[in-house]
Amino acid sequence: MTTNQLVEQIKQKKSFLCIGLDVDLNKIPQYLLKEADPIFAFNKAIIDATHHLCVAYKPNTAFYEAYGIKGWQALEKTINYINEKYPEIFTIADAKRGDIGNTSTMYAKAFFEDLAFDSVTVAPYMGKDSVEPFLAFSDKHTIMLALTSNAGAFDFQTKEIDGKEVYKHVLETSKSWKNAQNLMYVVGATKAEYLADIRNIIPDSFLLVPGVGAQGGNLQDVCKYGMNDNVGLLINSSRGIIYASNQDDFAQMAARKAEALQKEMALILG
Amino acid sequence: MTTNQLVEQIKQKKSFLCIGLDVDLNKIPQYLLKEADPIFAFNKAIIDATHHLCVAYKPNTAFYEAYGIKGWQALEKTINYINEKYPEIFTIADAKRGDIGNTSTMYAKAFFEDLAFDSVTVAPYMGKDSVEPFLAFSDKHTIMLALTSNAGAFDFQTKEIDGKEVYKHVLETSKSWKNAQNLMYVVGATKAEYLADIRNIIPDSFLLVPGVGAQGGNLQDVCKYGMNDNVGLLINSSRGIIYASNQDDFAQMAARKAEALQKEMALILG
Repeated sequence: MTTNQLVEQIKQKKSFLCIGLDVDLNKIPQYLLKEADPIFAFNKAIIDATHHLCVAYKPNTAFYEAYGIKGWQALEKTINYINEKYPEIFTIADAKRGDIGNTSTMYAKAFFEDLAFDSVTVAPYMGKDSVEPFLAFSDKHTIMLALTSNAGAFDFQTKEIDGKEVYKHVLETSKSWKNAQNLMYVVGATKAEYLADIRNIIPDSFLLVPGVGAQGGNLQDVCKYGMNDNVGLLINSSRGIIYASNQDDFAQMAARKAEALQKEMALILG
Repeated sequence: MTTNQLVEQIKQKKSFLCIGLDVDLNKIPQYLLKEADPIFAFNKAIIDATHHLCVAYKPNTAFYEAYGIKGWQALEKTINYINEKYPEIFTIADAKRGDIGNTSTMYAKAFFEDLAFDSVTVAPYMGKDSVEPFLAFSDKHTIMLALTSNAGAFDFQTKEIDGKEVYKHVLETSKSWKNAQNLMYVVGATKAEYLADIRNIIPDSFLLVPGVGAQGGNLQDVCKYGMNDNVGLLINSSRGIIYASNQDDFAQMAARKAEALQKEMALILG
């Protein structure tokens, strides 16, 4: 999917919502555990109920790997279901991968070819040659961690190198990498006040913004400092939407939570 | 496995060799592709031929994920085979994971519980709360990236914060984390000259050292600067051993390469 197609979808749906599909079997309605594939059954119901309110789905791979092969089968079924039934939706494998070059190529194949995701999240610690193998896939997007939503972001990301924070070095350095036009960045909603500075460095890039909802980030602040002419934001909510209810009405209640965010977004888009 | 058990195994085998099981179907003997599970068939032959020469096996998860569910089945069969047949061997899931707390817990479950690895590699960029969930598994080991073997290590890891390189901050900061005694660190063999400084910060920790062989690192230099009283080193070789031949004799040739390294190690251990 091209960035233009993503922007077009945002305008049509008046939404820049991404829904995180982080399925924990302890938190889903317990009657679903009788299904042959409870994770996929849960995802399918959530997707069918929310696809018109969001522009992206983001399964976090940890929640699938924790269930072993059954988890990977559920992940495969989920991405295939989205691609077949709602091909307009942007898909993100939230995997936070990164390794030496030939190994990163294998990760890129895993998420872009074996599982046909539009994008994957990557970690920057190993530098240029750990990220460029992802960028080499010209019709795909690579979403690199910059400033994350958790407390641990202050351990290294905000420390200063030559008077400038590590995450700013990550942003600036990455602009010179081959096929940098395929980069998007993760910036946590809990750190909205940093967004003005970030936009000075990467005015045009899309930002994936987790941390609205359960983690306490504020949508208005994120938009005030982070939005650009193409919107340029994908706001993720996971637990706040998918676990709105653990009863029969879970999909309906998830849609209600998604709709509340979508309406707030429609107002902001004007 | 406890660190003492690992040290004991090193003394018995006179080896601190780790063999990387990074299986690329384009590089293995082509007659294996007729097998029901070529990846496992390859690994089983390599393991049976080399288990007495090494103390650890390290499958890199990228090479399994690239083949989807079949790849994960091969990874599961591989770890189960090692644990059943050679339980004395230390196992490393080279996964380079790391995410916010509740998500890292799911990754820890994936590699410590669903797949019963002794250890997993993690990335430090997201800080303390992304790594402590792994450390909470008291009988397991968490191997954190410090200074990696690739060229991209110079993009961020060696940049200075307050006159001290990022990777040194990573080492120092991590010493204060809860259950830090379960930490080991990745230090690339291609950067052996940095090891004396690193040993000043973490004198007692085990180091996983990739980059000997295909990447050009030198075993003598690594040992000179990196060894401690408990040896404290696991030297990894992947491509240099497992792809020694792509003919019928691949396992035998891999054993020969492993034996050459083991003999060099036995001499160093004296």
